[in-house]
Amino acid sequence: MYRTHTCGELRIQDISKRVILSGWIQRSRDLGGMTFIDLRDRYGITQLVFNMETNAGLCREARKLGREFVIQATGVVTERSNKNPKLSTGDIEIMVDILTVFNESVTPPFTIETETDGGDELRMKYRYLDLRRDPLKNNLWLRHRMAFEARNYFNSRQFMEIETPMLIKSTPEGARDFVVPSRINPGQFYALPQSPQTFKQLLMVAGYDRYVQIVKCFRDEDLRADRQPEFTQIDCEMSFVHQDDVLNMFEGMVKHLFKSIKGIDLNHEFPRLSYDQAMEQYGSDKPDIRFEMRISDLTTAAKGKGFTVIDSAAYVGGLCVRGCSEYSRKQLDELTEFVKKPQIGAKGLLYVKYGTDGIIKSSVDKFYSADDLKIWLNQVKAQPGDLILVLTGERMSTLRALSELRLEMGNRLNLRPKDVFKPLWVLDFPLLEWDEEAKRFFAMHHPFTSPKTEDIGLLDTNPGKIRANAYDIVINGVEVGGGSIRIHNEYLQKKMFSVLGFTPEEAERQFGFLMQAFRYGAPPHGGIAFGFDRLVSLFAGEDSIRDVIAFPKNNTARDVMIDSPSKISNEQLKELSIKLNIKKE
Amino acid sequence: MYRTHTCGELRIQDISKRVILSGWIQRSRDLGGMTFIDLRDRYGITQLVFNMETNAGLCREARKLGREFVIQATGVVTERSNKNPKLSTGDIEIMVDILTVFNESVTPPFTIETETDGGDELRMKYRYLDLRRDPLKNNLWLRHRMAFEARNYFNSRQFMEIETPMLIKSTPEGARDFVVPSRINPGQFYALPQSPQTFKQLLMVAGYDRYVQIVKCFRDEDLRADRQPEFTQIDCEMSFVHQDDVLNMFEGMVKHLFKSIKGIDLNHEFPRLSYDQAMEQYGSDKPDIRFEMRISDLTTAAKGKGFTVIDSAAYVGGLCVRGCSEYSRKQLDELTEFVKKPQIGAKGLLYVKYGTDGIIKSSVDKFYSADDLKIWLNQVKAQPGDLILVLTGERMSTLRALSELRLEMGNRLNLRPKDVFKPLWVLDFPLLEWDEEAKRFFAMHHPFTSPKTEDIGLLDTNPGKIRANAYDIVINGVEVGGGSIRIHNEYLQKKMFSVLGFTPEEAERQFGFLMQAFRYGAPPHGGIAFGFDRLVSLFAGEDSIRDVIAFPKNNTARDVMIDSPSKISNEQLKELSIKLNIKKE
Repeated sequence: MYRTHTCGELRIQDISKRVILSGWIQRSRDLGGMTFIDLRDRYGITQLVFNMETNAGLCREARKLGREFVIQATGVVTERSNKNPKLSTGDIEIMVDILTVFNESVTPPFTIETETDGGDELRMKYRYLDLRRDPLKNNLWLRHRMAFEARNYFNSRQFMEIETPMLIKSTPEGARDFVVPSRINPGQFYALPQSPQTFKQLLMVAGYDRYVQIVKCFRDEDLRADRQPEFTQIDCEMSFVHQDDVLNMFEGMVKHLFKSIKGIDLNHEFPRLSYDQAMEQYGSDKPDIRFEMRISDLTTAAKGKGFTVIDSAAYVGGLCVRGCSEYSRKQLDELTEFVKKPQIGAKGLLYVKYGTDGIIKSSVDKFYSADDLKIWLNQVKAQPGDLILVLTGERMSTLRALSELRLEMGNRLNLRPKDVFKPLWVLDFPLLEWDEEAKRFFAMHHPFTSPKTEDIGLLDTNPGKIRANAYDIVINGVEVGGGSIRIHNEYLQKKMFSVLGFTPEEAERQFGFLMQAFRYGAPPHGGIAFGFDRLVSLFAGEDSIRDVIAFPKNNTARDVMIDSPSKISNEQLKELSIKLNIKKE
Repeated sequence: MYRTHTCGELRIQDISKRVILSGWIQRSRDLGGMTFIDLRDRYGITQLVFNMETNAGLCREARKLGREFVIQATGVVTERSNKNPKLSTGDIEIMVDILTVFNESVTPPFTIETETDGGDELRMKYRYLDLRRDPLKNNLWLRHRMAFEARNYFNSRQFMEIETPMLIKSTPEGARDFVVPSRINPGQFYALPQSPQTFKQLLMVAGYDRYVQIVKCFRDEDLRADRQPEFTQIDCEMSFVHQDDVLNMFEGMVKHLFKSIKGIDLNHEFPRLSYDQAMEQYGSDKPDIRFEMRISDLTTAAKGKGFTVIDSAAYVGGLCVRGCSEYSRKQLDELTEFVKKPQIGAKGLLYVKYGTDGIIKSSVDKFYSADDLKIWLNQVKAQPGDLILVLTGERMSTLRALSELRLEMGNRLNLRPKDVFKPLWVLDFPLLEWDEEAKRFFAMHHPFTSPKTEDIGLLDTNPGKIRANAYDIVINGVEVGGGSIRIHNEYLQKKMFSVLGFTPEEAERQFGFLMQAFRYGAPPHGGIAFGFDRLVSLFAGEDSIRDVIAFPKNNTARDVMIDSPSKISNEQLKELSIKLNIKKE
């Protein structure tokens, strides 16, 4: 037997039991007469004791053991004189009398403790060592529990988890596909799914009215912060549902996860904002509502006083920052720098300070009297002591810049605590987005999303104005899921492809199977997909999804641990009927 | 609201409730005064009634509806005068007063009922219609429940489900890989995993001592009956375990599945046979032990009577078939034809009939007296009324032929009922198999399987004789899982690669990351992987795994529904730095 207990299990009531433990040496301390070893496994740490007086031979052996050696220790549980309240096993220690070394270890390339000295690349290369550290171990345990609890929720509501295929068909709509050459069908390729979208819709046509799958998806995207070429979705679909049915079902799942995993009761109904409201109030379709500080439209209030910056702007928007009227020149300069960064793109920052003494100071005193500015203050509902920050310009880009400024102020004022969670739904997204470069519309969600019934008439006249039956769930400024009520009618689906610039032949070649399926009795249906990596990282309080993935790839899509991707043999290439076609530098 | 109840829900106690149902029209019957519609959804069938007398307009509408139309019916639950005990809703019907058509349907290409008239290819093309049929629906529901219960079992035993990557590295050992060209790393490829083997071993090195994953795996194999290019494993690994710990843990899982899914108590310990015993007694390493009929070695007993067929054979083996001494000439001829089929490969069949009257007749009377044959009868423990079937030849091929003959007799005598389940473990497999063509050893399980400690010495002298710490779990003649205790020592792993003909450089390039990991404190570990598709098909009583997969591929690895694999654009090829290299016919 390798062990009778784990290293996280023994307590004061186990005293005088004879036990066997197996694990890794976290640390050892040689105090002359005694040698102490912290033995670690997944479940915790237990202190082993070797006594020079009673068993000199064994104690000498123990002193030779290095960090990360894998050993087995047999001995008796005894009460510690010097208890460690930080350890769950801190009341006891093991007086060891038999010691076995299963495997030695060379010196690890970085410290395997909560705080480590290893750089990112080094820890990626030795991921199996990094995974020994508590933060990653806790994240993967959290991930396991979240998947398990999500499945519990769905199973008890008659959802079926159905596996959809991984080797599917390449379709140019959407992001780039990863493809897989077929050996048996030379010149032909499978594609890895960007999502099981069409298959889950076919399952609805097949009558499986509640489908769920926790599933790997793939996108061959260019390098962006915190994206992975393979990622995991909680993919869901339901039939015979209206939008509200979908929202309620999946709001329930999120509440179940918060309750079962974090003990947090989210008893209220999640706020539901339309896309237009979200943009208007927060400048973002994924607002962080842990703090208020909504955007106020000052366009009408501010215009007409001869200040060109404002008079020439299509839009003027302000934020009321509570209690910051005493912001210094330096602080305001920092904020100005912040909004002028290229990724934010504002030309400058205007401000109004509403002093605790009621005195109003601003960067626009030349054009606006105190009375003029009081109108602004009223508009943003300022109180004495508040600071009002104002941006001007084209409407959407100014709103987006205000959103960034709002988040920055939230950070500065510690209004975004990681242990507070504020979910909301954003609804009524536009159906289509115009792409200036391609000179055509793209589906904002995907081509299977249904337009609002009352907007269908606009398909021929003003497609850009159509609102979709599409929704996102947002938590703390992070979009953790999105979905829609789908088109379930062949003709509407064809119309949609035509609006997206597909010829009938292209639509048929790529999605003919789905439109054909709609001919055989497709039910009304809709669904959602959660970004599971993102959801776990949110629960874990991690900024990067890499920290909740066991073996992530780096930002050139490489696995530096196994050194992949890599070359394959000419024989393999030949069998697959392909050859390399690499541009010479 | 689309529905208040499902079509499988309403009972006699619901009478006079006003309800809304949604579903598909399974069948409709126009009886003049009344029209009846069977409305179907995933949960069952409910009878709708339309009355010409009370609501002629609606009744006329109902008559226009065709099979597989998707409709909504609102009405009152009433008691049926003509109850249908075969339906769970057979006591009631709905007197409909509101009818809505959500979608029409053209005539389906085959009958959507338990027994269908559609051929295989047609049903594959319209898989979403085939999935509406009860047999497939029940199989997928079974599959969902089995995955759910397996996860329950593991979760309650502290296993962590950890997702391993899908985009990994191609290694020539084992079956052929599917590969994925990397756009960002021109000329380099990922491979799809044939199993998460090396990753789960790295997780053991990382200290995650109980790992499980229900996971898609990929093998680019040539066409064989009932193989799929993508398939699902229940993949498991444990640290600090001996072989018995592994067997007990996963025997427990199998028992849990039988109990929770089928209500079958398998209370005994599963039989454990060594590979040698299995081959000797059943001629197979996956014996069907639903019936006895073991093979008896007659070599010594039969030789030396001047019959060349026997005297020149390395091995003579017999089966005792109870109660078949009256087999006719014709039946025996059929069996002779059976064993002479190329895939079985015997040269002929000898028999001895032990009549109920004690009289012995045989096909070898010329060479063997009744007394000679009594020795045979004793050896096979025959009783009056039994038939003894005998094959001769090279030992292993004759044992394999006897295994096939044994299964054939089991079929003929109905000794293999689908609702009886007899699991067993087969242990102590050979570590290596000699490949005559490649003139080298291959790992019988995989290169990470450990040799039995007592056989390690043979690595240098007689590798073919080494037994492995490898085990299969077999149910009813089907191998549903296999695994091993792994090598956890760098030097032994290197030695293993060297025996398999790898140069040190090849071993390092392909598996260096694993051997490097072994340097940092690898624990003893082992595991198992279950073929989940196979396991579900066994539970479902299906012969083909296709019947338990939602969207399977056909036997040229095509998805005929979505028409994949397919060509991709030249632009895609160029981006991926590859071009086609198709041999001209």
